Amino acid sequence: MSDFPAGDPGFEYRVRASFALQTAMQTIGATIESLSPGLVTLRMPFSASLSQQHGYVHAGVISMLADSACGYAALSLTAPEADVLTVEYKVNLLNPARGRTFLATGRVLRPGRRLTACTGEVIAIDEDGASTCVASMLSTMVILNPGAR
Amino acid sequence: MSDFPAGDPGFEYRVRASFALQTAMQTIGATIESLSPGLVTLRMPFSASLSQQHGYVHAGVISMLADSACGYAALSLTAPEADVLTVEYKVNLLNPARGRTFLATGRVLRPGRRLTACTGEVIAIDEDGASTCVASMLSTMVILNPGAR
Amino acid sequence: MSDFPAGDPGFEYRVRASFALQTAMQTIGATIESLSPGLVTLRMPFSASLSQQHGYVHAGVISMLADSACGYAALSLTAPEADVLTVEYKVNLLNPARGRTFLATGRVLRPGRRLTACTGEVIAIDEDGASTCVASMLSTMVILNPGAR
Amino acid sequence: MSDFPAGDPGFEYRVRASFALQTAMQTIGATIESLSPGLVTLRMPFSASLSQQHGYVHAGVISMLADSACGYAALSLTAPEADVLTVEYKVNLLNPARGRTFLATGRVLRPGRRLTACTGEVIAIDEDGASTCVASMLSTMVILNPGAR
Repeated sequence: MSDFPAGDPGFEYRVRASFALQTAMQTIGATIESLSPGLVTLRMPFSASLSQQHGYVHAGVISMLADSACGYAALSLTAPEADVLTVEYKVNLLNPARGRTFLATGRVLRPGRRLTACTGEVIAIDEDGASTCVASMLSTMVILNPGAR
Repeated sequence: MSDFPAGDPGFEYRVRASFALQTAMQTIGATIESLSPGLVTLRMPFSASLSQQHGYVHAGVISMLADSACGYAALSLTAPEADVLTVEYKVNLLNPARGRTFLATGRVLRPGRRLTACTGEVIAIDEDGASTCVASMLSTMVILNPGAR
Repeated sequence: MSDFPAGDPGFEYRVRASFALQTAMQTIGATIESLSPGLVTLRMPFSASLSQQHGYVHAGVISMLADSACGYAALSLTAPEADVLTVEYKVNLLNPARGRTFLATGRVLRPGRRLTACTGEVIAIDEDGASTCVASMLSTMVILNPGAR
Repeated sequence: MSDFPAGDPGFEYRVRASFALQTAMQTIGATIESLSPGLVTLRMPFSASLSQQHGYVHAGVISMLADSACGYAALSLTAPEADVLTVEYKVNLLNPARGRTFLATGRVLRPGRRLTACTGEVIAIDEDGASTCVASMLSTMVILNPGAR
């Protein structure tokens, strides 16, 4: 859990409904692993169709997963009618994205009425269950229709 | 063209060969639009399978396209035996990624023996041919096997 | 000049008045070299009191100069009553900050009612007048009190 | 402490010797608060000579402090003869830099022979001892003369 209260009791429904509309997430095989206020983890299996030139997962795919995790972490803290868009993100690729499964966790660092800062992290898990951190993200989200809070 | 000379006469072959190995680029429908030393443009048609929650192209897909364009701009300036990996990138999403076609241009800003800085830009082109800049990137690439230069 | 119209006719006065309040700019010896709507250049002479461990200007000082240039480029396009704060920035240090004079240019990339994206660049000029780009920045500014536009 | 071993037993001496050469740190009044392998905290008192237009500490000064903390965190893990330069950093300014004292902590996220990724955080402490996180950083350092490891 993060240190922040949910924006409304229906946060989980709102996150799942929006995630279901992101066809890009379906294309890369991503699913919601867990979600709580301000903290969202997405899961993606390795796929040979998402590689870079060495056969590892493309940095852009890893970043996309982390970006969505951050966006939904931010959305979990907003008023019901709000929506979230990515303003910008920065990602460091720390190790080759080699693994069987990838877990991307987005966490709200500083929630705001209009701007929310998040951190993201992507872990690769290999066949033996060993995990390696492959990416670290620092991002900014804008809240659309933030409501009267 | 950028201001930098090609790393070797075979730079175009090397870029095309590496790009062909990036299955992630095929999955998003990207192709090489143009390439010269230090400057690479990739093209991607809109696809309903790459969207975020409003039906626009996902920020992560736009960024992936720009990241690959930057990486190949860097690779075009290296020695023949070298390879390029993304160390990190930062991207600002300037407008919704709405359009029929997307052109991502990567340009080398500062080539180095081991580290190369690049800028990237993604333009959306709509049905009427009007273009909008949707993303701006600033990135760092590491050169593996940089050779004796 | 940038491609954007001034936010109000008094933009130059507003920028100069705000800049005069930034004591950090006086401490590093920075002055306004030129300003037009969406485009601001600051000048800073080399000072032995602003160095890192090799005697070059500290990366943080170079970045501070670029950050202020970006902020004032953004402020030049706002309504009269607005103010600007930095949300975040990313800077690549491209070459050692060695030189007699440093010119930092901030340019608005995408102005918005509440968020403005900017690019910054810092050039070092040596004793012979030769110039080298030492830093490239990509930043996001928030507009406070944006007015009715 | 971080999870990483010191690069050599003399790491503390090396960090202090390099820090003493950074005149920019003296100009902003920064001192070393604590240092252990991969983890460095710098302290800076508020000074009226380091402000932005509202009287808070300039974002660039806050970032400079975090950048130095990250650089010395990286240096603490290198071989004795190595040096560290900032390749790039990204910083989010999370709250106004209002306070009596500022503590910047740099932490190594992923040490490498030639490239080290770090995170930085700056805390403001007010007259009553209450603390607020004012900045979060994600940065890349290059190791010069990394040695034979």
